[in-house]
Amino acid sequence: MYVEDLHAHLIGRQGSRAALNTPALVVDVDALERNIAAMTAFARRTGLALRPHAKTHKSAEIARRQIAAGAVGVCCAKLGEAEALTDAGIEGILITSPIAGASAVERLAKLATRAPTLRAAVDHPDVVEALAAAAVPLTFLVDVDPGLHRTGVADAAAAVDLARRIAAAPSLTYGGVQFYCGSQQHIETYADRRTAIAERTAYLSDVLTRLDEAGLNPPVVTGGGTGSHRIDAELGVLTELQVGSYIFMDRQYADCDLSGEERAPFETALFVDSRVISANHPMLVTVDAGLKCFATEAGVPPVVSGAPEGSTYRFMGDEQGAVIPPKGVAPPRLGEVVTFAAPHCDPTVNLYDAYHAVKDGTLVGIWPIEARGRSA
Amino acid sequence: MYVEDLHAHLIGRQGSRAALNTPALVVDVDALERNIAAMTAFARRTGLALRPHAKTHKSAEIARRQIAAGAVGVCCAKLGEAEALTDAGIEGILITSPIAGASAVERLAKLATRAPTLRAAVDHPDVVEALAAAAVPLTFLVDVDPGLHRTGVADAAAAVDLARRIAAAPSLTYGGVQFYCGSQQHIETYADRRTAIAERTAYLSDVLTRLDEAGLNPPVVTGGGTGSHRIDAELGVLTELQVGSYIFMDRQYADCDLSGEERAPFETALFVDSRVISANHPMLVTVDAGLKCFATEAGVPPVVSGAPEGSTYRFMGDEQGAVIPPKGVAPPRLGEVVTFAAPHCDPTVNLYDAYHAVKDGTLVGIWPIEARGRSA
Repeated sequence: MYVEDLHAHLIGRQGSRAALNTPALVVDVDALERNIAAMTAFARRTGLALRPHAKTHKSAEIARRQIAAGAVGVCCAKLGEAEALTDAGIEGILITSPIAGASAVERLAKLATRAPTLRAAVDHPDVVEALAAAAVPLTFLVDVDPGLHRTGVADAAAAVDLARRIAAAPSLTYGGVQFYCGSQQHIETYADRRTAIAERTAYLSDVLTRLDEAGLNPPVVTGGGTGSHRIDAELGVLTELQVGSYIFMDRQYADCDLSGEERAPFETALFVDSRVISANHPMLVTVDAGLKCFATEAGVPPVVSGAPEGSTYRFMGDEQGAVIPPKGVAPPRLGEVVTFAAPHCDPTVNLYDAYHAVKDGTLVGIWPIEARGRSA
Repeated sequence: MYVEDLHAHLIGRQGSRAALNTPALVVDVDALERNIAAMTAFARRTGLALRPHAKTHKSAEIARRQIAAGAVGVCCAKLGEAEALTDAGIEGILITSPIAGASAVERLAKLATRAPTLRAAVDHPDVVEALAAAAVPLTFLVDVDPGLHRTGVADAAAAVDLARRIAAAPSLTYGGVQFYCGSQQHIETYADRRTAIAERTAYLSDVLTRLDEAGLNPPVVTGGGTGSHRIDAELGVLTELQVGSYIFMDRQYADCDLSGEERAPFETALFVDSRVISANHPMLVTVDAGLKCFATEAGVPPVVSGAPEGSTYRFMGDEQGAVIPPKGVAPPRLGEVVTFAAPHCDPTVNLYDAYHAVKDGTLVGIWPIEARGRSA
């Protein structure tokens, strides 16, 4: 792989982070490990299973570290992501998005054959019938719409119907329920987020009661995110957490109070290192990271280091950005490295082929992002 | 490569576009060829050299088609893009962004050694001196800032100084001037755009006069974009066009009047095919293309086909989007394909590993995007 070839000679060389070709996606291994340990301890303490979402990192190396620490497996957003991580030896995968169409049904059946621990969310009888017809062993979880109308069955009656169809199919296993409150994760204050999640969880409880009454008590109730994990644990309805962003954090989540307490439970572990490639103006310099190097739907990337305190970033097209120091302060010089945090981690990671794993400024590894671009 | 393996069996099968795994990046080969022919004819008619920008497509197959039609080579935005297209056999590459830093200097020297037709833009004496010290033959063009302060020397005096240094270095060749009016390309009306470009071109003419007076008359004056190509030709100062987006068009350029005439000179050739993966609500359906499948800084992707006239798209997170039909009209059904145009082509292409080349609904080829992600 291109990135590995290019940077392999820097591995273990002191201070080698500064010598990386830029823009470079960088993961601080110590911070990542502390985030993994903190969430694992939290899940253990609260009695929840942990199945972190791999859509955030798309990397077998990070999935292995999460599982080694105690996760029961990982979630994948797409079939292609699950194929890539299965190829890389990851087990215990839950595909969280429903699939549809003949070719996807065929691929899911094929993947289930070689990945006996695979499970998948489903929200429509047609897909259950198609997989039942394929006669491949697979565990299906009923995806319940939390009101966002993105995916999931629309009500308790539809959940009962779908669970019944799964349970009735000889090759299929009814694995439980998925309930992911996506739009609530980034509500800024803990109190407002708690109110919103509690209201949605009351609805989920009603659905679970209906399933129970139908003799379809779900063995697993999976959902939750980094923004809601403490609330989900406290409410006690979910049995499994699908948290993703906690491993990296990003500006979106850094702006949220995740704990209702003063100290944030996770720290920034994901960075983009850029370099000043044009410096002909006193008020700004141009770095080599633009629209193709950051998620762009969540604001600008925060400047972390390499530029004077208070410097800001502005997108300057596809390939570059401006770093603007506070008035009267000199900008960084030509060739200097400026480091950013990600505005939103998932779509930022999806732009790169590999992580540069660093400890104290030294490159310690290059981790391929096996599922990058695997949206199909 | 993954995408090729997956879809190779569909090549040449009638109607096979509908069987692609989604989301899929699709190029309409006939429309692409018409766009290439139209721009080549325009350049020939106006006596301009054509060096289309490969940052738009990042593909050797498309670069080859542009060169076969008459282009003198292609532009690359980054060193990594130029390395990837050189590896794929493309010649006549101009790297349009300045580079900086020891490792980039080393890579540029190495690339110049194996690509004798390589040329690069430069805007700082340090980089000229570093390449001069490497004693590798390379043609440098002086990048002149059109006022955006993104890249380029700040004034005529700096242009003269830099050109003189290039001309004085034994291994280097002074190749001329680059002047790219990035911020003017998307001004909506032709008249306003013309006024802005004419004003900037008057400044460029002053710089060229100063170079001429210093005995540094530039052999090439390269610049221009899809938005300004007719204006640039009319003003007659540029000798070479760097147009990129004309091959695909996108919503951004579809909203611009490119010709001052009624008929748009180029047509949409780039699409994203998605599939309905959840359909449990009467008012909207969910397709499998979200933030990871489209550029997100240029608005929402327009619905092209597969949904009722007047349907709109809304992003629903990283992995999905909503397709919303007009009030009272039924949305597409589960498993159906919905096709979108790109909001902005360059960063959309940068998310995919390959193009699915189609003619009349039949897959005729899979074209790898060799320079995808090569921002470093």
